[in-house]
This record gives sequence, structure tokens and C-alpha cells, in this order.
Amino acid sequence: MDEAEMRRRVERGRIGHLATVTADQRPHVVPCCFALDGEVIVSAVDAKPKSTIALRRLDNVRANPAVSLLVDHYDDGDWTGLWWVRVDGRARVVTEGDERDAALVALTVKYPQYRSTPPPGPAIIVEQLAWHSWP
Amino acid sequence: MDEAEMRRRVERGRIGHLATVTADQRPHVVPCCFALDGEVIVSAVDAKPKSTIALRRLDNVRANPAVSLLVDHYDDGDWTGLWWVRVDGRARVVTEGDERDAALVALTVKYPQYRSTPPPGPAIIVEQLAWHSWP
Repeated sequence: MDEAEMRRRVERGRIGHLATVTADQRPHVVPCCFALDGEVIVSAVDAKPKSTIALRRLDNVRANPAVSLLVDHYDDGDWTGLWWVRVDGRARVVTEGDERDAALVALTVKYPQYRSTPPPGPAIIVEQLAWHSWP
Repeated sequence: MDEAEMRRRVERGRIGHLATVTADQRPHVVPCCFALDGEVIVSAVDAKPKSTIALRRLDNVRANPAVSLLVDHYDDGDWTGLWWVRVDGRARVVTEGDERDAALVALTVKYPQYRSTPPPGPAIIVEQLAWHSWP
């Protein structure tokens, strides 16, 4: 799978799994909606900004910006068609301003669900993307 | 969601996402088949033992045993029904012996696909499970 194909699959992927590392070096993983916007991947926190669920992910990124987003396909009936694309990068939390607004636009274009209920929390911007895939 | 319900959803889940931490404190995430076997979660490395893909996950666990396994449900057409269960724990790599054999039995009971092609790599045994869920 070349990088163009990886990008296509990530663009089409509706749900990703975002892994971060806690301040005490434990892994954390959440499902997340995301959009590939040029050379960055953007995501937004669906939970209210002060909720525990939102805070964990944001705290992790602030303490350690290394993140890993996995987009994959599983089919219990056909193990020959499985694949995954993993994008490693460095994340920043953006709580307001043009950059957060642009992330929300990219997300809303991809997910019509966000039109009626925009995510209330900060955006997460992932840069310096390194692409990996299997098989 | 109480712990009994979390256990039921994890037992039924066909695919999980396993997050580990690399020796240089970066997150890593892979999709994985798994089975809940009493008070432990077991998984096996599908790739050949010396493959790069297998080594990364195993190296991570040997350097830092903290792992996080997420089992979740996504439905693009119904965001009101989304849920996830996350199980944090400590993992060990078991390359041979009764414990690996028992893990493969639990996996094969859950995944008939393993009957014809047992996973060639080591088993990963996750203990000291801490259960979390949303919503």
C-alpha cells in the first residue's frame, strides 16, 4: 500500500482509534472522529470541555504530544481482507481561534452529524504525520 | 454500564484495539483479536514471531507492561447508540508452555478462524484489569 492509498483509506475512514500516553507512561485509547486536512489530521472533543473524558485525552497530549491514530477494517467473515493504516504524529490542543474553526469546518464537511451539534470541546491538531500500513 | 455489562460487551466484541507505549514513550495501537478468559484477557500475535509487526508490540510490552484495550461500537447512521469499554491492565508475553496453550484454546473457542491457522506467535496475557466505559 503506497502513501496515496493510505491517505485514501484514512480519508474514507469514519472512525479512528487515537492512542496517547499518560503522564505516568500508560497507554490510553479512544475511538474518535477525525478528518485528514492536507498535511494534518484534525479531531475535536465531543464531550464538554471540563468532562473527565475530555480532560484525559487533552492532558495526555499536553504532557506528551506523541499520538497514534489507527484506521482499520475488520470483517469477521473474511480475514483475508483485513487492513490497517496507522498515522503517528505530534498533537496540539487548540481551544479557540481560526485554527480550531478550520478544524471544525473540515470535520463538519466529513460528518454531517456535526452540523446540528458542533463538538463543544477543543480541537486536536496532529502534525508531522508518519504513515504506516498493513498488509 | 456496570462491570457485568462491560464484561458482556467485551466478551461479544470481535475486534479490539490494543494500545501500548514504546520504549521512547510514544503510543502504539493495533487492532487485535482477543478473548476474556476469567480475570485475564488473552491475545496472540498473528504475524510470524520474528516479523517487524509482531516485534513492535512485544517489545513494547516487555519494556512497559501497561496496556489498554478498547472495545467499541460505531454506527455512522446513529450517533446516539455509540459506546466503548476500555480495559487497562498489565501484560506479559508468553512464548510457550501451558499458559500460551490455554490462551490459544480460549482464542480458538471464540474465533473458529484460528482452528485452521493457529496464530504462530507468542500469547499476550493481560492481568490486573481495570474496567472503564462510556456512556
